[in-house]
Amino acid sequence: MSLALSPTRIAQSLTELWSPRVIAELDDSYIKVAKVHGTFGWHAHAHEDEMFLVLSGLFSIALRDGQIELGPGELYVVPKGVEHNPSAAQPSCILLIEKKSTAHAGDSVNAYSRSIAEQLRQL
Amino acid sequence: MSLALSPTRIAQSLTELWSPRVIAELDDSYIKVAKVHGTFGWHAHAHEDEMFLVLSGLFSIALRDGQIELGPGELYVVPKGVEHNPSAAQPSCILLIEKKSTAHAGDSVNAYSRSIAEQLRQL
Repeated sequence: MSLALSPTRIAQSLTELWSPRVIAELDDSYIKVAKVHGTFGWHAHAHEDEMFLVLSGLFSIALRDGQIELGPGELYVVPKGVEHNPSAAQPSCILLIEKKSTAHAGDSVNAYSRSIAEQLRQL
Repeated sequence: MSLALSPTRIAQSLTELWSPRVIAELDDSYIKVAKVHGTFGWHAHAHEDEMFLVLSGLFSIALRDGQIELGPGELYVVPKGVEHNPSAAQPSCILLIEKKSTAHAGDSVNAYSRSIAEQLRQL
């Protein structure tokens, strides 16, 4: 038996921006949290959907055909293959669910790309 | 492009207890919300983990070796094969993520068993 997790508390304790950290496994997916501020960069995941849930602050997901604006408690699933550019106008915390096989920056490598090993570091 | 979802608002609009409703797809899983109160009943899912996130209220997950107590914003993953008995001492709202193949009451059929078709009804 493990313990209840507080994603918001864990995310708020993070110091590095746009650096997702794994908090739990869910079958072939990881549940992750991240602290975010600024703009991440355009990318897509060819084979996996990606769920974003806002824990605190405000989070935007730019799509080629529009913009999703998420407040605390709101969620959005970016379908596989859809280009998106996440951003946050203020320091914000998010929960993400991605397949274990998902590279969180997609096929692109940007300043924020983090390996799965980095995302699995002890919290 | 679809819209941001507010799981809490959707869950609070539900009238039937322990009747999960699908709000989004995430690859081979469904993201669901439910309004809960009282005790669900012991069951297990042999092949799938199950994620519970509390949106409002209080939610308990009895395990054979202990009890998980979750408040708003807290989450717990019940590993595959682990018997669990969810309960809520007050009317509460939860978000669940389950494989599309998961029978939400496991192999047991109880008063709260709902088919996937029922869970997919229009909100």
